Amino acid sequence: MSERGFDVVVLGSGTAGREAAGRLAQADLSVAIVEPELVGGECVFYACMPSKALLRPEEALTEARRIPGAAQAAAGKLDVAAVLARRDEINHHLEDSSYLPGFEALGIELVRGQGRLDGTRRVRAGDDVLVAAKAVIMATGTSAAMPPIDGLREAQAWTNRELTTAKVAPSRLAMLGGGAVGTEMAQAWCTLGSEVTLIEAADRLLGCEEPFAAEQVATALRERGVELRLGARAVAVRRERTGGEVTIELDHGPEVTADELAVAVGRRPRTDDLGLETVGLEPGKWIDVDDRLRATGVEGDWLYAIGDVNGRALLTHISKYHARVASDNILGKTAAATADGARSPRVLFTDPQVAAVGHSLQSALDAGLNVHAVDAPTSGNAGGNFYGIDAVGTTRLVVDDDRRVVVGATITGSEVADFLQAATIAVVGEVPLERLAHAVPAFPTRSEVWSNLMAQLGF
Amino acid sequence: MSERGFDVVVLGSGTAGREAAGRLAQADLSVAIVEPELVGGECVFYACMPSKALLRPEEALTEARRIPGAAQAAAGKLDVAAVLARRDEINHHLEDSSYLPGFEALGIELVRGQGRLDGTRRVRAGDDVLVAAKAVIMATGTSAAMPPIDGLREAQAWTNRELTTAKVAPSRLAMLGGGAVGTEMAQAWCTLGSEVTLIEAADRLLGCEEPFAAEQVATALRERGVELRLGARAVAVRRERTGGEVTIELDHGPEVTADELAVAVGRRPRTDDLGLETVGLEPGKWIDVDDRLRATGVEGDWLYAIGDVNGRALLTHISKYHARVASDNILGKTAAATADGARSPRVLFTDPQVAAVGHSLQSALDAGLNVHAVDAPTSGNAGGNFYGIDAVGTTRLVVDDDRRVVVGATITGSEVADFLQAATIAVVGEVPLERLAHAVPAFPTRSEVWSNLMAQLGF
Repeated sequence: MSERGFDVVVLGSGTAGREAAGRLAQADLSVAIVEPELVGGECVFYACMPSKALLRPEEALTEARRIPGAAQAAAGKLDVAAVLARRDEINHHLEDSSYLPGFEALGIELVRGQGRLDGTRRVRAGDDVLVAAKAVIMATGTSAAMPPIDGLREAQAWTNRELTTAKVAPSRLAMLGGGAVGTEMAQAWCTLGSEVTLIEAADRLLGCEEPFAAEQVATALRERGVELRLGARAVAVRRERTGGEVTIELDHGPEVTADELAVAVGRRPRTDDLGLETVGLEPGKWIDVDDRLRATGVEGDWLYAIGDVNGRALLTHISKYHARVASDNILGKTAAATADGARSPRVLFTDPQVAAVGHSLQSALDAGLNVHAVDAPTSGNAGGNFYGIDAVGTTRLVVDDDRRVVVGATITGSEVADFLQAATIAVVGEVPLERLAHAVPAFPTRSEVWSNLMAQLGF
Repeated sequence: MSERGFDVVVLGSGTAGREAAGRLAQADLSVAIVEPELVGGECVFYACMPSKALLRPEEALTEARRIPGAAQAAAGKLDVAAVLARRDEINHHLEDSSYLPGFEALGIELVRGQGRLDGTRRVRAGDDVLVAAKAVIMATGTSAAMPPIDGLREAQAWTNRELTTAKVAPSRLAMLGGGAVGTEMAQAWCTLGSEVTLIEAADRLLGCEEPFAAEQVATALRERGVELRLGARAVAVRRERTGGEVTIELDHGPEVTADELAVAVGRRPRTDDLGLETVGLEPGKWIDVDDRLRATGVEGDWLYAIGDVNGRALLTHISKYHARVASDNILGKTAAATADGARSPRVLFTDPQVAAVGHSLQSALDAGLNVHAVDAPTSGNAGGNFYGIDAVGTTRLVVDDDRRVVVGATITGSEVADFLQAATIAVVGEVPLERLAHAVPAFPTRSEVWSNLMAQLGF
């Protein structure tokens, strides 16, 4: 047992942990980062990155095929093997060596193994005890939540990990859950050759996003051939033998039979085995934090929790944001996370994509705001003659009529992910409507949807 | 000769005139609009719209071919006939009937013919005298400037009109001018089959845009096969016979021989024959306006000039902006155009696209601002693994170090037109850097270029 001192010890080398370690090391603090699995984290190997690799080729083809002249040149078949090979390139063939030189260059010490708190400012990892002079950062992320369904645990169900790394498309794929992972992966595997059935207990997809977004994605999935079983709850699962088919019994409607069953019903924090009890916190729960991202209920101003594990917003970009805020605080600048939470910017990479920031109309009303919404078709403008031609899509602004600012935006349509930043700057920057009306979108781009919306707001 | 009264008489039915007429008619004013050519204007028939129709198919194919899996499916040949047919659909086969029902529905009276001022508040159009109780709006736009080059007038040179409406790609096309029209149309016809030589008197393309943007577009044009003759001035042109080849003599370097010569060296206001002299203004010049878009030097607060003809910013979206500002003023609201001029948002639809708003670094320095610039590769982020893979592109923010706001942005790259609105809102909304740093771009989108730039700014 050796005891070693660092300024900061980081648990978890995913986006949050890596980003924080990098920022702190660049500020000349000594940093150790503890990782029991692949260095890089869930996003890189099993989530955002490989999922986009599976979705993007078909999206680009679909767009090219909307355009006369290009359509004729893009009439070939999606090359599934090439898509999967690209995915493997994107996720580094599940190999993490590419991250190591960066750590070395910054003098970050990588400790492989499970890290556990061992009282104040102390982390145990294998035979090491790492003592943190300034801070310990918990950045251990989440894993797939497994609902308590009869037979599920024995049925070798897939999670996001298998969904993003599978080497072949299963003939029949049953998906449990109609949130971001469920809808994206349903579309991806459907276009790559699977017959997909998506089962969602609620009577709509995409939880708290605008209803029109959920409907448009549902319609698009159906048009691609995904069978949607909405308002149906899985009550039992059985798989007779490994490699055999799996059957999902629902609370109503016929049962679903498939070759693989994937579970995408949410996430749980990876906090079971972190020694949280040694500092008075409860294992297995999200780690509550204040706006400076310090764990609440822990004395001494040394324990931070950033990224998914604090439960504020399970998004890679918010992990980076948290890393910045926590690092700034550790470095003595007072910084607060003021733009995360449920209203963080978020993008779903289905086709249509769903990009949203801030409130939905309903969440704003629920929050007691005096708001109204204006809607316009995302491609219903000159730009729509060239980009996303005839593609479904709606842009909604939710406007606070007391403060005269935009408090929410949802944009659906073909390739609209990068439309979001404009809305995010408007919402987070609290740009007054009277000034926003002078931010003239360029002709002929689909950003002119802003003009349509501002006209509805009296400009 | 009949005299008829309206609240407002609009000269020109292009974007500016149509938009103003529509807004005023919707506010229950009686409106006449006078048009000697096609109702709809230059943008629709001969500029923005058909040019994008010519460019977009190849752009979409290029993007699909960057993506493994999609590339294999998009290996066919661009269908030039289909591109041209789509262009003809976009420009309504040079037929303007689609605009008439809209006018009728709003009770806007269309007067076909050349409109000319006939003293205060009076417009003569053929046998009609239209008397305007509230305002006359000049919205007659611009035409291609023809430089005084020996033999040019006799050489049947193309302007933007032939460039956007040609039924076949000339075998060899010589382009005079390396601005927006010249670069876009050089790329378009090159990809549609022409051998293109672009002649530009300056030693770089794209006038006052950032030098890196000009260089990237130059490189891309060369890679596509366009021959660039920069720093070369055409001194004489000759075409022996109609249909014969045209030869352009330069001030140095070998002469250029082509089948068609196109002139794209700027625009001149369509003000020669508008009766401007009857109200004390000089024909053939841009109509100067104040920020409320009222012609300066005219008594009585009744004459407006909007869109290209006032020379403030020759952009369709700015025409719409002007239409709104002028209409608001005519309707008794005090409104000012505060976000146009040389620093208006603007997009060049070459590949790479160039999207810019506000200052370039040089223009900011020239304006005496205390600025510095930060640059980042537009695709140098996680999103660049999926969109614009390995595509050239740079995003620059020009930051005012005194006021701590962004005063300019230039974004180059594949399909970045819709990135611009975020920068426009930041610049026009004058969002403080300290707040802008909380506008977190979504992962994995190329909008994360903002994170890279903000990090360089200390966030």
